[in-house]
Amino acid sequence: MSASPYEQLEQEFKRLHALRGALSLLRWDAAVMMPRGSAEVRGEQLAALETEHHALLTAPRISRLLDRAQANAQGMEDWQIANLREMRRERDHAIATPVSLISRLTKAVSRAEMCWLDARAQRRFERFAPHLEEVVHLVRDKAALLGQALNLAPYDALVDEFSPGITTTDIDTMFKALSRRLPALIREVIAAQENRPPRPLEGRFPLAKQRALIVEVMKQVGFPFDRGRLDESEHPFTEGVPGDIRVTTRLDSADPFTGLLGAMHETGHAMYDLGLPHEWRDQPVGRDRGMALEESQSLLMEMIVCRSRSFVRYVQPLLAKHFGVSGPEWDVENIYTHLTRVRRGLIRVDADELTYPLHILLRYELEKQLLSGELAVRDLPEAWNAGMQQRLGIRPANDAEGCLQDVHWAVGSFGYFPSYALGSVIAAQLYESLRNDVPSLDEQLSHGEFAGLFEWLRTHVHGVAAKVPVQDLLRGATRKPLSSAAYIRYVEAKYLEPAESEAA
Amino acid sequence: MSASPYEQLEQEFKRLHALRGALSLLRWDAAVMMPRGSAEVRGEQLAALETEHHALLTAPRISRLLDRAQANAQGMEDWQIANLREMRRERDHAIATPVSLISRLTKAVSRAEMCWLDARAQRRFERFAPHLEEVVHLVRDKAALLGQALNLAPYDALVDEFSPGITTTDIDTMFKALSRRLPALIREVIAAQENRPPRPLEGRFPLAKQRALIVEVMKQVGFPFDRGRLDESEHPFTEGVPGDIRVTTRLDSADPFTGLLGAMHETGHAMYDLGLPHEWRDQPVGRDRGMALEESQSLLMEMIVCRSRSFVRYVQPLLAKHFGVSGPEWDVENIYTHLTRVRRGLIRVDADELTYPLHILLRYELEKQLLSGELAVRDLPEAWNAGMQQRLGIRPANDAEGCLQDVHWAVGSFGYFPSYALGSVIAAQLYESLRNDVPSLDEQLSHGEFAGLFEWLRTHVHGVAAKVPVQDLLRGATRKPLSSAAYIRYVEAKYLEPAESEAA
Repeated sequence: MSASPYEQLEQEFKRLHALRGALSLLRWDAAVMMPRGSAEVRGEQLAALETEHHALLTAPRISRLLDRAQANAQGMEDWQIANLREMRRERDHAIATPVSLISRLTKAVSRAEMCWLDARAQRRFERFAPHLEEVVHLVRDKAALLGQALNLAPYDALVDEFSPGITTTDIDTMFKALSRRLPALIREVIAAQENRPPRPLEGRFPLAKQRALIVEVMKQVGFPFDRGRLDESEHPFTEGVPGDIRVTTRLDSADPFTGLLGAMHETGHAMYDLGLPHEWRDQPVGRDRGMALEESQSLLMEMIVCRSRSFVRYVQPLLAKHFGVSGPEWDVENIYTHLTRVRRGLIRVDADELTYPLHILLRYELEKQLLSGELAVRDLPEAWNAGMQQRLGIRPANDAEGCLQDVHWAVGSFGYFPSYALGSVIAAQLYESLRNDVPSLDEQLSHGEFAGLFEWLRTHVHGVAAKVPVQDLLRGATRKPLSSAAYIRYVEAKYLEPAESEAA
Repeated sequence: MSASPYEQLEQEFKRLHALRGALSLLRWDAAVMMPRGSAEVRGEQLAALETEHHALLTAPRISRLLDRAQANAQGMEDWQIANLREMRRERDHAIATPVSLISRLTKAVSRAEMCWLDARAQRRFERFAPHLEEVVHLVRDKAALLGQALNLAPYDALVDEFSPGITTTDIDTMFKALSRRLPALIREVIAAQENRPPRPLEGRFPLAKQRALIVEVMKQVGFPFDRGRLDESEHPFTEGVPGDIRVTTRLDSADPFTGLLGAMHETGHAMYDLGLPHEWRDQPVGRDRGMALEESQSLLMEMIVCRSRSFVRYVQPLLAKHFGVSGPEWDVENIYTHLTRVRRGLIRVDADELTYPLHILLRYELEKQLLSGELAVRDLPEAWNAGMQQRLGIRPANDAEGCLQDVHWAVGSFGYFPSYALGSVIAAQLYESLRNDVPSLDEQLSHGEFAGLFEWLRTHVHGVAAKVPVQDLLRGATRKPLSSAAYIRYVEAKYLEPAESEAA
C-alpha cells in the first residue's frame, strides 16, 4: 500500500463518482418509473446518499491529501494537474457552505417546490411569496459564504458552480450585444414570416410510431442503446453516466416534432457525456465543463442541427415512412418553415431560438436584483410583467404564464439561467468553426451522416472534458474568445435569408 | 442536541436503512431496466454503496453508542430493547468478517458466477470446480470467524445470517421427520394421480392479457400499485422497501400459471414487507424476521393459497374473462388437479410442494460436507447424482440438471438453502392455526376475499417484525413450537384426499 497522495485522491473520487452515479439513477427512476406514492421514501434515500457524498468530499483526509499531492505536483502529467485543480474546486464548493445551511436550504426548497406547484396551478403568487422569500434569504447567505471562500462576488460564486470561470462581466457583455441586435431582428423576421406562413401540419401521430422514429434517428446519430435508454417523462432530461446514459422526451400525439426535438436536445447532452475521455471517466477532470457547455451541446443539436434544411432533408422521408404522411405540407421547405417560425410568446420552454435569449435576460436581471435585495419578492410579478413588456412587447395575463412558470427559483437554482443563453451563444460559435473545418457538413447531415459533426465535437469539446476553463476550451476550439458575434451572424444568416423560392 | 445514545443509534440506522433502500433500487434496475452493456458501471455503484454501508455500520461510534445505550436500557420500551438487540446483531455480523476477506470473497464470487453461467451452458462442471473451490475456501474462513464472534458452530453462524435463531439441530429434526414420511407419501400420491390424469390445458395466452389478469388478482390481494410496481425479469424477485415495493414475474405464453403463481409468490413477500409496523419502518426491529419467515409468506401464498380449490374457484372465471377459455378442461376441478400434480423432477425451481423439501435436503447435506471438507469439490457431481437417486429415485443426465442448476453456491450463499424447507414447514404450521382462527377462510378465498387471511398474518406474523426470535414468533402465532407435524398433516390431507367425484 504505497499509493501516492494523488493516487489515493483518485481512489476517493472514484468512490464519489460511483455515489453520484447511484444518485443519478435514483433521480431517473423517480421521474420515469417510481410509483406516485413513493416520493417520501425516495426523498430519504436521496438525502442519505447526498449526505454521504458531502461527508466524504469534505472529510479532513481529502484536504490533507490535496495539500500533500499539491506539494508533490512536479513530474505529474498535465491532465493530473488539471484533475487536482478540479478536485480542489469541488471540495472548495462543498466545504464553503456549512451543513446546517445546506440542510435548512434543502428543507426550505422542498416546501417551496410543493407550494410553487399549487401556486402555479391556482395562479396565486402571494401564496408562494413567503416560501420564495425564505429561499432567497438562504441562497443569499450561501452566495456570500461561497463568494468569500472562492474570492468571487456572491452572484459570480453561484454562476461558478454551474459554469466554472464565467463571470457577471462575461454575461453582461453577452446580453449587451444581444439586446442591441435581437429586438429589431425579431421585428423584421416576424414581419417577413407573416408574408409567407407555412401550410399547417395537422394529423394524429401514434405514440408507438413516434417512438420508432425517434429510436431510428437516435441510432443514426450514434446513441448506444446497449449502454443507454430512451423513456418518457413530463419534462425531457438526461441522467446517468457514460456507460449507462438515460434520456427522456415528452410525446404529443398531435405533433411529431415535440418528441423528436426533445429527444434530440437530450441526445446532444448524452453525446457530450459519451464523448468524455474514457480513461478519466471517474475523475473530476473527466466531467463535462459545466452547464453552459452542456446547453451548448443540446442546443447545437436541437436548434442548429435539427432546425436546418439539411436535417429536414434527412428526416422528411422518415416522417413519410413512419406516419405515412404526404402532400405539399410535408415537403422539406414547409417543414423547415414550420421549424424556424419565430413568435413572441410568454413561455420560455416554448420559445424559438431568436426570442429565447430575451427570456433569459429578464430572469438574469431579476434574480440578481432579488439576491441583492434591490427587488422585494412581493414586487416580483410586477417587475416580471414590466420586463416582458419592455423586452418582448407582450404582457402575461396571470403569474402562471409570468413569474411562476419556471421551477428554478423555487428549488434554489440562482445563477443557473445564464447558462441557457451562454449555451446558445457558445453553440453558434462552435458551429461556425465546425462548418469551416468540415465544409461538407450540410451534405453529410442531409444524408443522416453525423460522424463528421461528432468527430469535430469530440476533438474540440467532448475530449477536453474539464481539463481547461470554458474560455480556454472555446479559444482552443474556435481560435476566438467567447463572444456573441457568431450567434448574431448565425441568426441573421438563417432568419434573414430570402425565401428559398425567391433565392432560387 | 441532547439526543440520547439510543436516539442517536436510531438516526444512524435510519441512514443505513435509506442506503439499503438505494442498493435495492440499483439491484431492481439492473435486473429489470438496465441496458445490457452497463453491468460494469452498476457493479462499481453497488460496491461503493456497500462499502459505505459497511463502514457506517462498523464505525467505532456505533459500538460506543451501543454500549452506552445498553447501560441506559432501564425504562426503555420493549420494542426499543429488541431494536437495540437487532442493531447489535447486525453490527456483530458485519464486524466479524474483516474487510479484506469480504473483498476477496466479493471478487471470487464475481468470477465464480460468470464461470458458473458458462459451465452450466456447456454442462462442464470441471471448468467451474476451481472457482467453487476458492469460494468454499473463503466461505469456510468466513464461517469460522463468524462462529467465533457469535459463539456458534460455523455452519450455524451462516444460517443465523439468513434465519436468526435457527440451528442445525432444528434443521436436522425437521429433515428427519420429513424424510421419514415424504418418500412413501410421494410414491402413493404419484400412483393415485396416475389413475386420474388431468385434461391437458393447452392454448396461447397473450402476454398483455396475462399481465392484466395478474394485476387484477394482485389488486384484489391488496398490493398497492400506487406504492409498488409489477415488472418482468428472467427470475421472479421482490426488491424495494415498504413505500416503494417492486415485484417481478416471468411470463410464458404457453402457460398462464407460471406468471400468475410467480407473481403470487412475490406478492407473498411483498405483503409481508408491507405489513411490517410503519412506526419501526427504518429500524432493525422493523425488518422481516429472516429468510425462513420470508419464504413461509411467499410459499403460503403460492403453494397453499393459490393451489387450493378455493382460490381456483375465484380465479377460474377470471381465466375465462381474460383468455376467453371454456370447456371441461377449464373447470375448477381440472385446473386444481393440474396445479397439484406431483412429479419426480430434477429441477428444484420446477418442483411441486411435496418433492421440494427433498431437493433442499440434498443441498443441505452436500453444502455442510463441502464446508467441513468431508466432500471434495471435485466429487460434488457424483455425490449429487447419488443423492438424487437415493432421495427421488432419478438421476441427472448431466450437471446442468444436476449440481450446476442453482446459482447459490457460486455466489457464496451457503446456509441459505434450509430457509426454503423451513419456509414450507412454517407456512403449513401458520396455515393450520389460521384456518382454526378464521373458520370461513376457504369461503372467503373462493370469493377473492383476502382480508381475513392478511388480518391474521398481520396480527401474528407481519406486525411482529423482528421483535422476537423465529421460534418465539411461531409459538406466539400458533401456540406450538416449530415442527414439521402441521406440514405433514397438510400434505397428507391435501394429496391423499379421495378424488372430488369419489368424495361427493
